[in-house]
Amino acid sequence: MITNAYYTTEVHGPYEMITIGDLVLEEGQTLPGCQLAVATFGKLNQAKDNAILITTWYTGTHQIFAQAYIGPSHALNPDKYFIIVANQIGNGLSTSPHNTDGPLSMSKFPHVRIGDDVVAQERLVREHFGIERLELVVGGSMGAQQTYEWAVRFPNMVKRAAPIAGTAKNTPHDFIYTETLNEATRSDPGFHAGEYSANTDVRAGLSRQARLWSVMGFSTEFWKQEHWKTLGFDSADAFQTGFMEPYFGAMDPNALLTMAWKWQRGDVSRHTGGDLAAALGRVTAKTFVMPIDEDMFFPVRDCAAEQQLVRNSELRVIKSISGHLGLFSLEPSYMEQVDRHLGELLATPA
Amino acid sequence: MITNAYYTTEVHGPYEMITIGDLVLEEGQTLPGCQLAVATFGKLNQAKDNAILITTWYTGTHQIFAQAYIGPSHALNPDKYFIIVANQIGNGLSTSPHNTDGPLSMSKFPHVRIGDDVVAQERLVREHFGIERLELVVGGSMGAQQTYEWAVRFPNMVKRAAPIAGTAKNTPHDFIYTETLNEATRSDPGFHAGEYSANTDVRAGLSRQARLWSVMGFSTEFWKQEHWKTLGFDSADAFQTGFMEPYFGAMDPNALLTMAWKWQRGDVSRHTGGDLAAALGRVTAKTFVMPIDEDMFFPVRDCAAEQQLVRNSELRVIKSISGHLGLFSLEPSYMEQVDRHLGELLATPA
Repeated sequence: MITNAYYTTEVHGPYEMITIGDLVLEEGQTLPGCQLAVATFGKLNQAKDNAILITTWYTGTHQIFAQAYIGPSHALNPDKYFIIVANQIGNGLSTSPHNTDGPLSMSKFPHVRIGDDVVAQERLVREHFGIERLELVVGGSMGAQQTYEWAVRFPNMVKRAAPIAGTAKNTPHDFIYTETLNEATRSDPGFHAGEYSANTDVRAGLSRQARLWSVMGFSTEFWKQEHWKTLGFDSADAFQTGFMEPYFGAMDPNALLTMAWKWQRGDVSRHTGGDLAAALGRVTAKTFVMPIDEDMFFPVRDCAAEQQLVRNSELRVIKSISGHLGLFSLEPSYMEQVDRHLGELLATPA
Repeated sequence: MITNAYYTTEVHGPYEMITIGDLVLEEGQTLPGCQLAVATFGKLNQAKDNAILITTWYTGTHQIFAQAYIGPSHALNPDKYFIIVANQIGNGLSTSPHNTDGPLSMSKFPHVRIGDDVVAQERLVREHFGIERLELVVGGSMGAQQTYEWAVRFPNMVKRAAPIAGTAKNTPHDFIYTETLNEATRSDPGFHAGEYSANTDVRAGLSRQARLWSVMGFSTEFWKQEHWKTLGFDSADAFQTGFMEPYFGAMDPNALLTMAWKWQRGDVSRHTGGDLAAALGRVTAKTFVMPIDEDMFFPVRDCAAEQQLVRNSELRVIKSISGHLGLFSLEPSYMEQVDRHLGELLATPA
């Protein structure tokens, strides 16, 4: 257990630690007294039928949703909906390697799967908030993995689903890409097999990881058109050292590895003996599948192939020169599109 | 200077070391008695007007051309043409960090530019072989950079040009991708700032580089469709450990860094004060610009934008699920397309 100033309300804004009890993981171990860091927006109505669940991506927390996705001018409108953002297990805020004491601390933190997150979130939603059905589950990237898992595992609880820039079954290419991120971290001598004394010991490895995200996270046009200028930087290098590296450098390496392991193995067809069509056939939610056109590792064609397997679904492609990391709402046109699609989805009877 | 069994005729088949004299580099230093490793195929005719020059890519040598591109059944037909494959400086066969003695050895090897290669090759062609005009200059990736450089710098000597899967001016995205390759190598403690005692000291770094190529070098579909099966492997992992890692693991780290530095800065607009249109406007060769449709870092749109700036040119897109590394002719359909385009180009009066 170590201290990391990044994972605090000072940095992330208000959130609550909610215990959802002991969580028996798919891989066999148990997270005792598992806690989810949860931020909520708006008010749950008496009928408890105005709730939306947002799931988080790799490196992500509730913060980006608070800053960019949620508000009176957005489809995710807290004046209308009770919006729950559940930080995924291992993301540094919820129960994670660096904030767990005892035998499951740091390098001994167990492997967690997307299904474990969704089981934990279902308890949160039903037992803690008393909600039986969600108006919408929405998330990007690993958040899309959780969204699909929700729609397959608890179809009766999910009225609508919006997986953004992510897949129901992780692809082999994504797996090997993610492995290069892991290797960047692990190859830093300061990593000490996960038993570093501060995340800053692994600064070089985290910087290398940041650079890999620079290659795959954006698009070739993002760099060619020098789109980083719109984010206030003078050069590509300044963008990398002033934005990408500090972003990753603040994080906990074991948290990143925990999330990466989960990401690599996300697969709803685990419920159906490997039959993806059968798994996605269980989805009853009205679903908008929302890939990003310039995404280099969740390409539209992979998302579109899955969308074809979801009965009540539509493909809604988001245009963004920022590629996968368009998820961070790096262009005004991004949220305009997300709001338009989610607004339409929420207005659709389901 | 160290020994590396990879850079031998045993591994690479016959080639000749040809001295082209002292080479004053664009960056100011001089490579004394610079040698190019050269393989030739076919016979130069009396008029010396049947010569083709092939340039090499990052990690590449003449070998892949001998194995896949050149032959009586190919457009690059040695029964008809005198075909010269000039290994690029720093590729491990030509003058390179590990085979240079004295003050320019290993980490002290100077920075070489694409223009330096082309100046060296021009001497080879004109002074050594007595050829005044080439029927065709063709190369892939960094070989395409050299092809463009030839067509811009020596327009009177280049009748036809075929840059495959590469650009005249390297893109910012390519630059940062290449930098991750360099970091993978340099971050290996065994690299010792370029003064390792054997390339095997840097095995971990070279393996990490191999994995980065697995992510960017192929296409997402290559992995999804398990195309490695057609190359004789049982699993994606076996393909990586049995093919990608040994391929890179055999190479010299300083050679890779020398080529990478050059690749990152390839830019024909250095001749015209940064004006790419002006530089490409100098090209008189009949040119087929041949990007690969699934290339993740020389995408078709980048190549097509340059093609628009070359007067006497056509865009010929090659389809290959293998992406950039389709260059290695990993599918029968690849060479069929290359042969068709090059055959047509060679049949075009110029």
